[in-house]
Parts: sequence; C-alpha cells; structure tokens
Amino acid sequence: MKRVLIATGGGDCPGLNAVIRAVVKRAAQEEDWEIIGSIQSFDGILREPTEIMVLDEHSVRGIHVDGGTIIGTTNKGGPFAWPVKNADGTWGAVDRSDEMIRKLQYMGVDAVISIGGDGSQKISQKLFEKGLNIIGVPKTIDNDLSATDFTFGFQTAVQIATEAIDKLVTTAASHNRVLVLEVMGRNAGWIALHAAIAGGAEVCLIPEIPYDIEKVAKKLKSRYNKGKGNAIVVVAEGAAPKGGTLLSEKSDEVGYENLRLGGIAHQLVHDLKSIGFEADMRETVLGHLQRGGSPMAYDRILATQFGVKAFEMVLEGKYGEMVAYRHPHIISVPFHEAIDNPNFVDPEGDMVKTAKGVGIDFGE
Amino acid sequence: MKRVLIATGGGDCPGLNAVIRAVVKRAAQEEDWEIIGSIQSFDGILREPTEIMVLDEHSVRGIHVDGGTIIGTTNKGGPFAWPVKNADGTWGAVDRSDEMIRKLQYMGVDAVISIGGDGSQKISQKLFEKGLNIIGVPKTIDNDLSATDFTFGFQTAVQIATEAIDKLVTTAASHNRVLVLEVMGRNAGWIALHAAIAGGAEVCLIPEIPYDIEKVAKKLKSRYNKGKGNAIVVVAEGAAPKGGTLLSEKSDEVGYENLRLGGIAHQLVHDLKSIGFEADMRETVLGHLQRGGSPMAYDRILATQFGVKAFEMVLEGKYGEMVAYRHPHIISVPFHEAIDNPNFVDPEGDMVKTAKGVGIDFGE
Amino acid sequence: MKRVLIATGGGDCPGLNAVIRAVVKRAAQEEDWEIIGSIQSFDGILREPTEIMVLDEHSVRGIHVDGGTIIGTTNKGGPFAWPVKNADGTWGAVDRSDEMIRKLQYMGVDAVISIGGDGSQKISQKLFEKGLNIIGVPKTIDNDLSATDFTFGFQTAVQIATEAIDKLVTTAASHNRVLVLEVMGRNAGWIALHAAIAGGAEVCLIPEIPYDIEKVAKKLKSRYNKGKGNAIVVVAEGAAPKGGTLLSEKSDEVGYENLRLGGIAHQLVHDLKSIGFEADMRETVLGHLQRGGSPMAYDRILATQFGVKAFEMVLEGKYGEMVAYRHPHIISVPFHEAIDNPNFVDPEGDMVKTAKGVGIDFGE
Amino acid sequence: MKRVLIATGGGDCPGLNAVIRAVVKRAAQEEDWEIIGSIQSFDGILREPTEIMVLDEHSVRGIHVDGGTIIGTTNKGGPFAWPVKNADGTWGAVDRSDEMIRKLQYMGVDAVISIGGDGSQKISQKLFEKGLNIIGVPKTIDNDLSATDFTFGFQTAVQIATEAIDKLVTTAASHNRVLVLEVMGRNAGWIALHAAIAGGAEVCLIPEIPYDIEKVAKKLKSRYNKGKGNAIVVVAEGAAPKGGTLLSEKSDEVGYENLRLGGIAHQLVHDLKSIGFEADMRETVLGHLQRGGSPMAYDRILATQFGVKAFEMVLEGKYGEMVAYRHPHIISVPFHEAIDNPNFVDPEGDMVKTAKGVGIDFGE
Repeated sequence: MKRVLIATGGGDCPGLNAVIRAVVKRAAQEEDWEIIGSIQSFDGILREPTEIMVLDEHSVRGIHVDGGTIIGTTNKGGPFAWPVKNADGTWGAVDRSDEMIRKLQYMGVDAVISIGGDGSQKISQKLFEKGLNIIGVPKTIDNDLSATDFTFGFQTAVQIATEAIDKLVTTAASHNRVLVLEVMGRNAGWIALHAAIAGGAEVCLIPEIPYDIEKVAKKLKSRYNKGKGNAIVVVAEGAAPKGGTLLSEKSDEVGYENLRLGGIAHQLVHDLKSIGFEADMRETVLGHLQRGGSPMAYDRILATQFGVKAFEMVLEGKYGEMVAYRHPHIISVPFHEAIDNPNFVDPEGDMVKTAKGVGIDFGE
Repeated sequence: MKRVLIATGGGDCPGLNAVIRAVVKRAAQEEDWEIIGSIQSFDGILREPTEIMVLDEHSVRGIHVDGGTIIGTTNKGGPFAWPVKNADGTWGAVDRSDEMIRKLQYMGVDAVISIGGDGSQKISQKLFEKGLNIIGVPKTIDNDLSATDFTFGFQTAVQIATEAIDKLVTTAASHNRVLVLEVMGRNAGWIALHAAIAGGAEVCLIPEIPYDIEKVAKKLKSRYNKGKGNAIVVVAEGAAPKGGTLLSEKSDEVGYENLRLGGIAHQLVHDLKSIGFEADMRETVLGHLQRGGSPMAYDRILATQFGVKAFEMVLEGKYGEMVAYRHPHIISVPFHEAIDNPNFVDPEGDMVKTAKGVGIDFGE
Repeated sequence: MKRVLIATGGGDCPGLNAVIRAVVKRAAQEEDWEIIGSIQSFDGILREPTEIMVLDEHSVRGIHVDGGTIIGTTNKGGPFAWPVKNADGTWGAVDRSDEMIRKLQYMGVDAVISIGGDGSQKISQKLFEKGLNIIGVPKTIDNDLSATDFTFGFQTAVQIATEAIDKLVTTAASHNRVLVLEVMGRNAGWIALHAAIAGGAEVCLIPEIPYDIEKVAKKLKSRYNKGKGNAIVVVAEGAAPKGGTLLSEKSDEVGYENLRLGGIAHQLVHDLKSIGFEADMRETVLGHLQRGGSPMAYDRILATQFGVKAFEMVLEGKYGEMVAYRHPHIISVPFHEAIDNPNFVDPEGDMVKTAKGVGIDFGE
Repeated sequence: MKRVLIATGGGDCPGLNAVIRAVVKRAAQEEDWEIIGSIQSFDGILREPTEIMVLDEHSVRGIHVDGGTIIGTTNKGGPFAWPVKNADGTWGAVDRSDEMIRKLQYMGVDAVISIGGDGSQKISQKLFEKGLNIIGVPKTIDNDLSATDFTFGFQTAVQIATEAIDKLVTTAASHNRVLVLEVMGRNAGWIALHAAIAGGAEVCLIPEIPYDIEKVAKKLKSRYNKGKGNAIVVVAEGAAPKGGTLLSEKSDEVGYENLRLGGIAHQLVHDLKSIGFEADMRETVLGHLQRGGSPMAYDRILATQFGVKAFEMVLEGKYGEMVAYRHPHIISVPFHEAIDNPNFVDPEGDMVKTAKGVGIDFGE
C-alpha cells in the first residue's frame, strides 16, 4: 500500500474539490494506493492529535460541484513559520518543517500533492529541497501565474463579476447613476479586465495601468454630455492612481484576506467627488462572493485535468514539479520555473486592445 | 383617444418593467388608448422640455425579463417637494403639484398609474385628493406592506441573498470562518428572515427583534465547542442591539439610498470582537446587487397581474385605489387603507417559529 | 428514546431534502428523539435486509440546497400493492401493509412522517385507519392540491420552465421560428400557465382548457401577418384538443413517469402542419430537468416550514393529518379532506385573466 | 463615408450579438464609417425590398448580454444556392452571387464581415474569389475548427449541458435510474466530452469513438453490482455504435436542424434494453436550450475580441482571411487554411485521458 497526502493551502478557490476528486478517482484505477488529506493545509499534520481525512471514492462523490475544499484550508503560517505565542503575549514563528517531514515518514506518506498559490509553491520548493516527494498544483483565482495558460477558479470569478455587472447595469440606468464595482486582483487586473469586457463597463482600473483621476472623471462626464449619465466602473482592489502606492507594495506580507475590502472603490468615489464630479455614485464590493459557489464547467474541467495529471506525476516520480496548462496540453514545470514568474496584464496586449476597441477607458 | 401616463418612483425593483409591459399589452386590447411614461417618476412631466416616452407594444417587447425600469426612477423630491437651490446655496423645496396636474390636463392625460413605494403612494393620495384620476401599484422590495400579501421584487431579493449564502457557506466551511452577510431591510426583516431559512444560516438579526450581542457570541461559541467554527450570520441593515437606536428612528427622512451600506455588519463584527469573540470573521454587503438583474418568474407573474389589474381599474374608473394581492385574488384597496399600514415580522409568527425550529438564533 | 421514521414517495421534487432536514433539526431541540429514514419510500422497511438510514444533524447538513431526496424514492407499488412475479412470469401485487405495521412496531417506531403526493397520502390514510401514527407532508410539483395554497417544488419548476423560455426566445427570434415547449402538468396546467406569463409566451395550452387547433394556427398566423413570425407555445403534457381524450382519462394508473415525454408537443406540431400552417416549428421537452437541481429559496422555505410543523404535529399527536399552507399560516388538515380535492386552473380565474390580459392565447 | 455590412449565418450561437456590438463600437472610434446588417444572413440583400438594419451605438447597446442575433440568421440557401420553386412544384436552386455582389456595390458597401460556420466560410471564400472585400468570423458552437483554439458559444453550451447534468444527478440518485442526456455534436464530441467531465458522468459517447453497446451495458451493470444503480450517460447526437453509420456520413447536406433530435438517446436506451439491461432508464434531449440564453463571460469576451479584430482587418484591408484565436493572441488566417480543417476529439489526447482518469467510460 502506497500513500499520497493532499493539502490545500491559501484562499479557497472554485475547483479545489474537483482536483481532490480527480486525484482520488485516478488513484482508484491503480492497485494499492491510498489518498489522505491533511486538514487545513499542512496544519493537520502538525496538530496534536493529527487531523487527516481518508479520501476514497465515497468521500469525494459529487464534490466537484461544490466550492471550497472538503479538507479545509488556511492562509496563515505553514511549516516554516508556525505561529507561536511569545511569553510577552506577542506572536512569533518557528520552523517546524523537519518535524513535519519526519511526521510524514512516520505516517507512511510516499508522496505529497500540494494545491496552493504562490506562497504554497514556495513552501513546496523548500520541502522538495529537503527531500520530500512533493508535487504542486497551482491555485490562483487571479490567473497571475505565467507558468500556466490558465488556472482554475478564474473563469468562475470572472463569471460572478460579470453577472454582478449585468445586475448593476439596470439599476444604474434606471437611476442614472455611476456604479463602482470592486473585484479581486491585488497585483493583476485580469478579473477586472475580463469582467469589464464581458459586462460592457465604461471604465476599468487595474494595478498594471495607474489611473489619472481627472481622466476617469472626463470619461464619465463625456457620457453626461451625451445624455447618458449612467456608467459602470470596474476596479481591481489593487488599482492605484498615478504616483500612488500600489497596495501590493505597501506590505509584502499582506495577503488578500488582510486587505480592507472596499478600500479602493471608496477612495475612488471620494476622489471623484473631491475634484468636482457631481454624479450620483454608489459602490459595490464583491468580496468573498467571488470565491464561493459551484465552479463553472470550465474550472471543473481544468481542475480535473490538474488532479489526474498530479497523480500521474506521482506514478512517474516527477517530484519537484508543478502541473500546468499549455493549450491544449497538460504539462509539468519545475517549481523554480513557476515561482516568481507572475502573469500581469500587458497594457499593450491583445486583451487591453480589445477593451479599448469597445470604448473601455483605463483612466490613462 | 384616451391617454394613460405611467410613472415609476423610488428605488428600482425587479418587476417594474413587467408592470409597465402588462399595462401596455392590456391597453392594446381596447380601442383608442395610448400609454405614455414620465421619465424618472413625475420629474419628466415637470421638466422643461417635458420628458416622456411613448409606450407601445414595440417599446415594451421583452422588457419583463429585465431589471430596472425603462422609464427611469428617482427617490428624491416629487411634485410636492421639488428641490430648488436657494440664493445662499442651500437647498429648499417648493410645491409644484398644482402645476403638474395642469400640465397633465394640458397633455390630455386621462388617468395616471403610479408605481412606487410608501412615499409614492402618499403622493398619489394627495394628488387624488386634488382631483387627479390616479391609481397606485405598490412597489416595496422589502415586502413591508400589510395591504397586500406579497409585492413583486421581494422573491428576487430573497433568491439573490440565498444564492449569496450558498456561495459563502463553502468558503466559511473551508476557512472555519464566521461570515456576516448584510441584506436589505431597514424597518422590516423579511428578506433577512427568508434568506436565513433558505440558506441555512446560524444567526439572523432583524429590526423587529433587538439583539443581545452576548447572546449572539454565545451561539457562535457553542458551535466552536462542538468543533464547527464556521457560521453564517444574516443581518438586516436596520437591525439594532437591544437598547440601541433603530436606523429607522434616526431620521424619518433617511431612505435606503442614504444609509451607509455595510454599517450594521461592520458594527456587529466590531462589537463581537470587543466582547472577546476571537473567531475569524468577515463581512459581505449585498447592496445594489439585490435590486438588479432579471426578476424571478414569481415576481414577473405578480407584476404582470398588478399591471393588468391597474389598467382594468382605469377602465372601471376605480381611482384613489391601489392594486393588491390577497391570495389567490388580485384586488384593490383605497390608498388611505394601504398607507401607514406596515407589515413587520411578527416575533411570535409562524415564520420566526420555523426559523427557530431549524436552530436559527435571533440573539434574544 | 422515541423514534420517528420518514419516507419520501412518488416522483422526486425540489424541497424534499429541506423537509427532511427541518424534521431532524426540530427534533434535535427535544430530548430523546431519533429520526430514521426508510430507503425508497416504504420499500426500505419491507426489504430484507431492512434498508434504513439514521438521520442526525450530521447527515442532513447542507442538504436543503440539493435536489432529490437523500433517502431515495419510488413511484411503484407501496405496502398495499407490493409487486410480485407470478408463476407465469406476469406481475401481480400483494398487500403487505399489516406486515409493515408490525415491522415498524418491532423497530420501535413511534410515528411516521410520509412525504408524498396524492398516492402517498391515500396510502397514509389507509395506514392511519389501521392504527399507524402517521402524519402527511404534501408533495406535488404540479401544485394541484386544494388543501394547501402552495406546495414546494412548484416555484422551482416554474422558474426552470421560465428560464427555458428565456433561452428559446432569442433563438426563436433569430430564426423566425415557432418553438413549442412541453412542460409538466398531466391534470393541472399551473406550471404551463405560470411559465407562459413569466416568459411572455404567445400561446399556452393546458388540460383545463381544451384547444382548437385552428384557433392556435390563427393566432400564430396573425403574428406572421404583422411581420413577427416567431412565437413561443407553452404546452402542458396533459393538454388535449377539444373533443380529444385527456391523457389523464386514458388511464388512471398512468403516472407521469409512464407518459411518453414529448407526446403532446410532437402531436401539436404535426397537427399544425396538417392544417397547412407552414412556419418553421421546433419542439423542446423539458422532462426531468424540471425536477432536479437546487430548490429556489421559496421552495426551501416552504419545505422547511412543512418539516418543522410535521415534527410538531408528532409532539402534539396530531396523527391522521397533513401539513398545509394557508397564507400566512402553516396549518394541518385531516387526510380525508386533503385527498381527492384537486386544485385545477380555473378558466375564469384571475391568473387566466392576467394571461389573456397580456395577449396569451389558449386556443379556445 | 465608408460602409461595412455584417451578416450572421447558420444556427444561432451565444456571442453573435457581442461580435456585432464590438464591430460597431470599434468602428465608432474611426471617422466616417457606417455599419449595416443584412437581415437573415445574405438573404436581406437579395430580398425585395432589401432588408437591412443600421447598426449604430444606440442599436447595439447592451446586446452582448443577449443570445441570438439581432440581425437574424438562416441556415438555408445562400447566394450560390438560392431556393426557387420549379414549375412542377419541386424546389431547385439558382446562383445569385454575382447579383449580390452588384447589389453590394450599388449599396456602397466597401467591405463585408461574415460571421458564420463552415458553410458560411466556404461561401465567403467563393465571394472573395469573385472579388468581394470579405472577412470571416468563425462561428461553431461545437468548437470543431482547427484554425482557432476556441470559438465563442462553445463554453456556454458546455455550461448549459453541465448544469443539466447537475440537475439530473439528484433525480437519478433519488430514483436509482440511468439518465441519458443527448447534447449537440454531430461530427465532434467536444460538448459531450467537456460536459461529461464537468458533470461527473459515468459514460460518454462521441462520434470520434464508436461505441460497443455491450461495453456500455457492462459499465452500467458494474455499478449495479457495487450497489449504485444510478448513472449519467452523456451522448453526442452524432455518436454511433461500432460498425454503425455516423449521422454525419448519412448525408452531407443534413445540417443540425434537420437531424431528428433525440434520435441517438432513444436508440441507445432501446439497444440497452434489447440486450437485456434492465435498469430504469430515461432520456433527456437538450436541443435548442443549448443555443439560447445569455452567453457566458468567456464567450462574450472571445466574441468581442473577434469583433474588434474583424473591423481592424477591414482597416488593414486583410480580405480573404478569417479571425482566429491562438492563445493568447487574436490572429487572422486565410479562408483556404481555415476551411476543411476540422478539429475532432483525439481519442488519445489529453482531454480523453483526463476523462478516463476519472473513470468515464467511452464504451470501447
């Protein structure tokens, strides 16, 4: 009997369960493989008592339809920075990675499949360097990883944001209002850009293109002059004005979860008012609604492809690598190639050209 | 040729277009009736140049599927309190109701159908007392009117809030979090109550049942002790702690649109933390997403029933009355019976009993 | 310890799981009650080995969101007509009701909650007359029961049918086609009538109003003459031409499941062609898609109300009665009042008037 | 003033309106360009009186959200085979292509953008060879074109089919049934394959992999033996048994619209019964529901990219070429490369491997 442990780390993302199910169903086709899950990323291994879950065909039945992850997740700590309370009440961190690797050996774990974002992949690389048989599955709802054409969860987030715009358009038109929708995207504006095109927004503000508040006001005013006061402004949470500090630069330690949701939408409305733009403006912040819910077919399929491939990489002993999608193939790339190779919106790229082609303004 | 003018007032609400379409299609079955719409409630009549829209079968084709209102709406002013800028730059209001009635006569309008909320119905009653042939169609997304069993838009808002809970449940479970969802309901907690039952929330806070923050914390903690840290708290924007001031009491002049969205959710999380509740908590505010989008079949049907009945009341000369639904009949009631007769959640009623029956806590 | 057994019978219907969950959660608030479910209606009790499922808070968590029934269902047989294979290979039936009651006593079952349609309620009445402590919960997706204002599942079916029309409208318009949509409704046309209004259909054919094929063609042709060839025809599966035999009269034994799906839509298109109507016509049959999927908020709430009430009726010993909804109260009515008291569409009622008011033709 | 004519041909497909809107909005950024649409593909040009529609920013507002095509479509005839009734009552065809080109010159049309499927592109190539300034935009809901990575409409069709499976799964499980879902795919099984993976089907039958009915029965029986009788079988309309005739081979002239919907699903159930498979089986045919409704964000974006690019190709005079997507770029390819270069499911490809990896059986 060989044993594979799965862990899901970082913010939850539609498709995680489909990856888990695919690993389990693929493993069931081989003899003598058992899949277990560590509860809340690697924390389950390090907790006392150990928190793991047996993942068999029964326990994964139908879970590809559900959002979230049945084995839980966390975006704090990890084996290299396990939080401990100091004597003075402050919090510190200790490295428990060696202990974790010993625990995995003790548990008879032959290989680990780690599904997670940039932070998780870095941890995986370090664990691999310490000798752990580990394989990575990328998870970033923002689609901000250049090693893979697409990541699961992204299309679901775009669809949810687009449906939100569809809802806001009618209320904006009825009240002749400017509605500002804040979506995810701390460093990369892909969700905002895609949703702005799909929803037919008038303005789209993303981290990759610093905006000029006067230009934004000018675009919105030009509509008033044409008799159409209503407009939809889609803004990525990491967008910033020209000369302003990107949220992502404020602190490298700050993850999505610690950002003040609604901050940029609120600031934008405030700034527009302060330069004399008088339209009736309202903010909507999608927040956690973008992460939840049943994944779109697209994301279920991509996640299933990733899960099947991940287990096959275990069979082949392709450790130290991460699953990736290069249309139309599922491939694997070494961790070190995948990490620190972000995928930002190219201001000169085809997608921004398309957006400008249908009149979307980036406040440049 | 006889002419009927339609106006839609107050916040937009799924189903408004279905009412308009039904009036137009019913009128098309009679000879020599023309329907026109005043742009942005009665403002269109009073503006110079007059802003009206001809509503024929062509212009209403397919609009029952769309949210919002094709003739626009506003929740400011009205003929009895038309906003004017004073010499000192402050804003005042003048009564232009007589002028409006004269304008309607001049335009050859034989009857008016006014679709709107409590404020609109009060205006209608006053216009009726001044001799205008006017009929009311109730519009309150909050379902807070006792004269009618249900109002259109409510089921759509409940469905949207329920789907939001469905999305939040998986993310709450994956991260072991308490998620607070703020929904509409300044005076009446119907949307929160229905969504809490439909979504399977753990806690529901509504204006009709002032909450004790310690009791809310106790309920949430009891789940931690059972090993389930995650929970969904649904809170109506008008909910208030015991002894606190209801938002609705703070100012009678304050409409939805002027309330600070997210206020109560934010306060609740803050208050829970301040009494030592340490769970990972996040807020989500639905806001304008509840108003927009395609109305559910239920609301399209009710709105269509209201529209057909409203035109038939014109044919019968039943002025000074408002359409209402008393299962399974569409009836009419005099304005004075309908106004100031709100429909609040009964803390001892069957719906609250159902909620408590499935373990929902009201923080009492 | 007291024990309540739940059974779900007949065709599956969105909301069944919400009833089960509500019974379990309500029972958990009392001391010493255990809920068990019989697999596939009463069959689970009579099978060897007995097939039951323990229903505790863990096993019902989150099931209100899912369609179907976690304890399975069947629409064949039952304790009074258990199918047996005769020596000659034909099928007969035996009465195993006394045996079932003895088995329930042996299992220590104190009360039974039977969730099911007309057939199930008749079985419940007979079991009650034999001394069983039994309570009924009505289930009919067709809403064809006069004892209750509404039944769960109906609004979900209407919504699914309406969304189908929304999809068909654009394709009908693009191709200038007549699209015929067949929906459920063997005896009662409620789903067809509601969906036709909500979707904005041109023609609606229901069992309660026999149609004249010439009149249907005339209506469709009148649109061609006005330049709009496209049209949506919604037809209930039990609709029949004037003078024709209603499906429901063909055999009392025939349930939904045995009807030939698509029969009436196909016949209608054939008959229209045979009288010389030359438009491009296509059929769509919703079939099983109407039963499945997550119940709408409306149905989840009604089902939850029914479940809580059913358990409270057990506490009160109100056996021989069925839960019902009389707006805005949840009440109970004796089986004998509920059975054989169908709720048909009234051709002179308010809902048909509304439909005709927006120009829907019934082929009269 | 320069004039571009748009035509949409073949079966309607979610995203057509988004292409039209994008062309119009992109053209509005250049001076002196006018866009017009020919009603029902090229038929509008050849009819008397000519049927065209002016496409300006007003007429395309919000249409990207709607299914269908505002300028109508047809999948019959075309300029090279215009249907004419012979003296003996039979139908023949005449070539009116030269006449159409002259008419376009007369109308002052400088360039044509033809959005359509394989048939339309062949017509475009022939018109280009006759000297017409024509650009192609591919439209195939089946994604069966190798010149482009993806075509719009496909993801929407997959999502609709997946949601249908989600609905069928609960009803299949509740009744312990085998449910057969027939989806589009006459020559290529992409929709069936994607939906089967996304929905978690047990069996998937596609044209590219002829099935053995005994193998299908064996797979379904193996589940019965494990105690799970329920199963979902997804079958593409063009699937065929080993040794059977593919629908696509029966007649090259037969388009989707002429195929008997439900044929293969019905045959499959019949064949399974005839070889002694005794499970309770039901068929569902998605039919026209797959084409309609609001396009997913993915398809709206791809369609918008195609539309913007198409107009830019007009600016560049890139006639005789078709827009295509090669991730992540929008490119153009000559007609002759695009035509007759279909994109079939590779039975040895990564997607089929993924499907087999999660246990989906192809009846091989």
